[in-house]
Amino acid sequence: MSATDRVQEILSWYGSDNPGTLTNLARILNHGRLGGSGRLVILPVDQGFEHGPARSFAPNPPAYDPRYHYQLAIEAGCNAYAAPLGFIEAGARDFAGQIPLILKLNNKDSLLEEKDPNQAWTGSVHDALRLGASAVGFTIYPGSSERFGMYERIRALGEEAKAAGLAVVVWSYPRGSGLDKAGETAIDVCGYAAQIAAQLGAHIIKVKLPTSHIAQDAARKVYEKEKVPIESIADRVRHIVQCAFAGRRIVIFSGGAKEDDDKLFAEARGIRDGGGFGSIIGRNSFQRKRADALRMLDTIMKIYAGQA
Amino acid sequence: MSATDRVQEILSWYGSDNPGTLTNLARILNHGRLGGSGRLVILPVDQGFEHGPARSFAPNPPAYDPRYHYQLAIEAGCNAYAAPLGFIEAGARDFAGQIPLILKLNNKDSLLEEKDPNQAWTGSVHDALRLGASAVGFTIYPGSSERFGMYERIRALGEEAKAAGLAVVVWSYPRGSGLDKAGETAIDVCGYAAQIAAQLGAHIIKVKLPTSHIAQDAARKVYEKEKVPIESIADRVRHIVQCAFAGRRIVIFSGGAKEDDDKLFAEARGIRDGGGFGSIIGRNSFQRKRADALRMLDTIMKIYAGQA
Amino acid sequence: MSATDRVQEILSWYGSDNPGTLTNLARILNHGRLGGSGRLVILPVDQGFEHGPARSFAPNPPAYDPRYHYQLAIEAGCNAYAAPLGFIEAGARDFAGQIPLILKLNNKDSLLEEKDPNQAWTGSVHDALRLGASAVGFTIYPGSSERFGMYERIRALGEEAKAAGLAVVVWSYPRGSGLDKAGETAIDVCGYAAQIAAQLGAHIIKVKLPTSHIAQDAARKVYEKEKVPIESIADRVRHIVQCAFAGRRIVIFSGGAKEDDDKLFAEARGIRDGGGFGSIIGRNSFQRKRADALRMLDTIMKIYAGQA
Amino acid sequence: MSATDRVQEILSWYGSDNPGTLTNLARILNHGRLGGSGRLVILPVDQGFEHGPARSFAPNPPAYDPRYHYQLAIEAGCNAYAAPLGFIEAGARDFAGQIPLILKLNNKDSLLEEKDPNQAWTGSVHDALRLGASAVGFTIYPGSSERFGMYERIRALGEEAKAAGLAVVVWSYPRGSGLDKAGETAIDVCGYAAQIAAQLGAHIIKVKLPTSHIAQDAARKVYEKEKVPIESIADRVRHIVQCAFAGRRIVIFSGGAKEDDDKLFAEARGIRDGGGFGSIIGRNSFQRKRADALRMLDTIMKIYAGQA
Amino acid sequence: MSATDRVQEILSWYGSDNPGTLTNLARILNHGRLGGSGRLVILPVDQGFEHGPARSFAPNPPAYDPRYHYQLAIEAGCNAYAAPLGFIEAGARDFAGQIPLILKLNNKDSLLEEKDPNQAWTGSVHDALRLGASAVGFTIYPGSSERFGMYERIRALGEEAKAAGLAVVVWSYPRGSGLDKAGETAIDVCGYAAQIAAQLGAHIIKVKLPTSHIAQDAARKVYEKEKVPIESIADRVRHIVQCAFAGRRIVIFSGGAKEDDDKLFAEARGIRDGGGFGSIIGRNSFQRKRADALRMLDTIMKIYAGQA
Repeated sequence: MSATDRVQEILSWYGSDNPGTLTNLARILNHGRLGGSGRLVILPVDQGFEHGPARSFAPNPPAYDPRYHYQLAIEAGCNAYAAPLGFIEAGARDFAGQIPLILKLNNKDSLLEEKDPNQAWTGSVHDALRLGASAVGFTIYPGSSERFGMYERIRALGEEAKAAGLAVVVWSYPRGSGLDKAGETAIDVCGYAAQIAAQLGAHIIKVKLPTSHIAQDAARKVYEKEKVPIESIADRVRHIVQCAFAGRRIVIFSGGAKEDDDKLFAEARGIRDGGGFGSIIGRNSFQRKRADALRMLDTIMKIYAGQA
Repeated sequence: MSATDRVQEILSWYGSDNPGTLTNLARILNHGRLGGSGRLVILPVDQGFEHGPARSFAPNPPAYDPRYHYQLAIEAGCNAYAAPLGFIEAGARDFAGQIPLILKLNNKDSLLEEKDPNQAWTGSVHDALRLGASAVGFTIYPGSSERFGMYERIRALGEEAKAAGLAVVVWSYPRGSGLDKAGETAIDVCGYAAQIAAQLGAHIIKVKLPTSHIAQDAARKVYEKEKVPIESIADRVRHIVQCAFAGRRIVIFSGGAKEDDDKLFAEARGIRDGGGFGSIIGRNSFQRKRADALRMLDTIMKIYAGQA
Repeated sequence: MSATDRVQEILSWYGSDNPGTLTNLARILNHGRLGGSGRLVILPVDQGFEHGPARSFAPNPPAYDPRYHYQLAIEAGCNAYAAPLGFIEAGARDFAGQIPLILKLNNKDSLLEEKDPNQAWTGSVHDALRLGASAVGFTIYPGSSERFGMYERIRALGEEAKAAGLAVVVWSYPRGSGLDKAGETAIDVCGYAAQIAAQLGAHIIKVKLPTSHIAQDAARKVYEKEKVPIESIADRVRHIVQCAFAGRRIVIFSGGAKEDDDKLFAEARGIRDGGGFGSIIGRNSFQRKRADALRMLDTIMKIYAGQA
Repeated sequence: MSATDRVQEILSWYGSDNPGTLTNLARILNHGRLGGSGRLVILPVDQGFEHGPARSFAPNPPAYDPRYHYQLAIEAGCNAYAAPLGFIEAGARDFAGQIPLILKLNNKDSLLEEKDPNQAWTGSVHDALRLGASAVGFTIYPGSSERFGMYERIRALGEEAKAAGLAVVVWSYPRGSGLDKAGETAIDVCGYAAQIAAQLGAHIIKVKLPTSHIAQDAARKVYEKEKVPIESIADRVRHIVQCAFAGRRIVIFSGGAKEDDDKLFAEARGIRDGGGFGSIIGRNSFQRKRADALRMLDTIMKIYAGQA
Repeated sequence: MSATDRVQEILSWYGSDNPGTLTNLARILNHGRLGGSGRLVILPVDQGFEHGPARSFAPNPPAYDPRYHYQLAIEAGCNAYAAPLGFIEAGARDFAGQIPLILKLNNKDSLLEEKDPNQAWTGSVHDALRLGASAVGFTIYPGSSERFGMYERIRALGEEAKAAGLAVVVWSYPRGSGLDKAGETAIDVCGYAAQIAAQLGAHIIKVKLPTSHIAQDAARKVYEKEKVPIESIADRVRHIVQCAFAGRRIVIFSGGAKEDDDKLFAEARGIRDGGGFGSIIGRNSFQRKRADALRMLDTIMKIYAGQA
């Protein structure tokens, strides 16, 4: 698992982190089929908690079993598997050492929809250590009136995680009363969400793939005046990556709801061409039959490897 | 108390727990008339706190005495007895070693009804240890705007309980402003409640026996499209069990308000046939005369043993 | 780096602080081109978090890179560089020991504008120590209904920072439902804001350069009766400095949005002539080309040195 | 890095450890040229501390440089590199993620030789986490009057390490007033040392390759009566492995002072044939020229792989 | 204070330390007349505690005054001033920010001479922070039967100091029943002492300038066989530097008792030519008249700057 030059370059951006955190970042970067390339495909499965089990798993019932996701991530050659406490606990012994784990430390359910959503703290740094995770994950909702509480919780847990040599992954998902639906994926808002996660000290940042919509008037003036290119997916990805410390933080993109393969592959090519670091693909992976999912992930990884 | 294959299989699902927690799970699984079968009948008595003493115990006045419930659970051959701090303290010395105990660590009274109910933290992990309990119990209210505070308290107490080798039992009872009355026992909502408890790290999950009602539009689409069978009690139990990590977490069902015996027995048969792990029967046990209760519980246990 | 008489005099005002805090104040006062003069020019870059990355950095794209700001502050000969956790972390190893750092411990984003704004706590005193910062920075919003929470947080963190030998910098920015737009920079309000920061224990106070508007009726009567001179910039600066313990606390002034150079230079002369301690210049520094920024900062420093 | 059946089998012996510890054991077992085979070759370099720098490194001066040992372990394809705090700190950032690390938490110098030697506590579990180590290492001296202090320190640090998901390696080296020189490597004493380490909770046990000498009279009677085979190296290794919980703990053997290659290879074949898990080879690796060391380690690994 | 290439190179050796510690190392390396050169001259004054005040200060009575030493270090242009708690406290406010401080955290008096000397813990990391020190200092006595207690105290305080962003300086002075007088400055023993300090995690190591005597038989064999050059001062310094991680730790040399200037200068040239990092000169500085001391230190610094 000797580090490639690219992995060494990426690690060099995290000069304020201790060698333990660099080791865990390296574990994620060096694992799986894309290991060493500086690109990542991560399998995240928190939908059981976030959307409910039937909405998440009924389309592919074997996915009710927590072992299914460990196995899918391992066989597909993903860089890491991310999930809440219960799912991680349900397989951590059986699959110990077989894939880097990201323990999600906060979660939200959708039995009560709130205009300004929040998250509950559902795991600890100690849980991450006892379960052998390489990183902890958090979600923040920039745009919600509850955001500051989330930023503060993440700051505190992030400080503890870094001291324990773990990496910190932030899902930065704009929503809440400050934004309308289109605003949640607007290019200016997604760029801002990436910046906030980076300023909060995230090592790996997950944002949604943005549209070319601009939500904030003050931002629109600047995009137009400075002629920031945002036409193609690659343009927008390049901009988001720039918003995350000029490319000196790892930014990956989520696919969202189930889509047809051609769209997924076009998005992956856009992420790759725009200098994005990869994808985090949940529903599009586990809501289809296993063989189909492995085929799809195989193509995605070929795209990131420059082979498709 | 050598473990049966079934108990061994159940314990194998909890690979992230330490042997102390497995030992306490085994104590519950191996105790009583159903010991070793992988089925459980638990006597819970928190109604004095939750509904008030007269509403709870006047129908059968000996039940005012905390020793009554210990004795009832022991004589009926239940797997465990669950109660708040005061009731457990009032008998723990006299009945030490005679039945596994579950100390409920939070409780709610009903002198003030709130649209979005919460629970008070009323016991500690240390209390559980000093009283000889095998498990701690918590209630959560998915659907209440107060739910995140409950999830967070449980996370913290659960981490502490697991480190001390105790098992964790979660009562997952949907209610609050996110749900109407029918929604509280809707099949999608109960499945979701089971999933949340499992993701929060519960070892044993208690939910209400659901109806075939579907409360959430987003869920209904999936149930209909995927033709999830929810007609019979057994169908619905099977679905709930699936929602709790594909059957890899112990799920038991509560009976609710006092019912006639035929309905109770039909429900138990449905739970059994659907692969449920058993029942937690409070009011239907202690709000009738002792002999009657023993007779009823005898039949329930026979049903779970495949003898009725 | 032997202390000048002026630096010694300034340090003498902080008699309740320990030698560690004096050492860090001295580091800031003695560093850069104005080192030893008792005047300061600080580069602050929290706009990525506060206003969003594109609004902040698109006018000068190299500024997306966190190293850019370290380098700009070092080459311009600033006394210190101030930024949130992420920006500081992204360069603290590479530029260790090259410029005093001020770690901003709270931040606000602008994806949701609130009438009574608050700030999130985004860094810790321990972060400041591990990153080698000389001071911690905080923003307060006198005039907001959330202000007391900010005062209290700052008090607690300030106490901790002082015990660890760090200096405390407070950005005192009046806003919120207690004030209209004009009130935010009114002379009475800015003077009041400086006083509050000083009373909260700040060592260095940053306020906006005030107008001659008087916002509060009760204050206006006094200003008129006592004929407080507030006509010129120098008059108003002199008054603000007086409001900060008769000049016995370091008060610096921020420029705000990008302005033309003549205005900037006139303001600096006014600050100098009014006995202000210097400027904190963010957007006017990093939103122009680097060479242009270095030229502008060179003139500003010459002004403070009495050479322009 | 999918676990082989053999690695899975080995991990199954550690049922009281949490998944974090299993993950780190798996990292060591799966790394390097022997990865997945269940055999290990570890490079330990604590001689600088234990014997002094000139005695340790003058024979091969590049070995004065801490980076030399990281590189040697990585290029040779060792499973792990073990060293005291200073040596680990001196390379942990540069080689982050390239080889599993074992941080030695106690050390002894030889400027004062004591009849009953002790060890100083020179690193912490927190150090291991911040440096990204997979395991902590300790030395005990059964036979010394100071042994109980060592056992107690190791117990406490081992408890802390296990809670943090780290593996525990114990160097069990009999010496002290209870033993003469021949006794330190006597078969009964080495077997006893392995047992003590196992009883203290070690995951990996390092002992010296024993002679056929029997040091204790009470033991000699049993070895003779039961005709325990101890003639060949393989016989003795088989007995030591049996002494470490019938082979259910990983036992590796140290070579000691510099030896000629034929002897080293014969010993490795004996360890292999007797069911030993591998070698920990310090002085024989780094006290010769690098190319020569790589050649020697290549042969050793071929022997363990059944290819030589 | 922009870092020279040499300072940057030196900082690069400390990859496991946080930016705070690098900042404090840089402060010491960049301060004074040798600032930026990678060479250091430090003024240490702990003789008042170690030898008694009259023995220390009567030869130059102004040196009884703690301010004397601050002023001497500042005027001579030393890189840092090192002293016990009392001396540092007695000047830290008056000289805040004028010279980097090293707070000695342990000390020994000489009212009772013991064969196996120990040190008392006389300051804390918190003291260092509140007093504005850049580093903490410790003394260890390899060769004393009390050494392990000193190693353990230093380990614990070093961990705390590093977490707080301070540098760690270790005085490694062999003495005790393991060594005779000649052994205390023997080349093998001094090299070993440097190695021990480095393995304990010291950033800056202070040893005595060694003689060509070899104290340990086991070492002598190696020095002779490997023909390690130890004839000249430069040879011996080169060897000691090699013993401290092949030159990747800062090693400085102490002069010991008062000597004539020619000998001092010859020693400094030897240290310089052998690649030593500088001198720590106590008694030879403050036990002579101030003007004389400044003249002597001026020559020493010229020697290190290659100008004498």
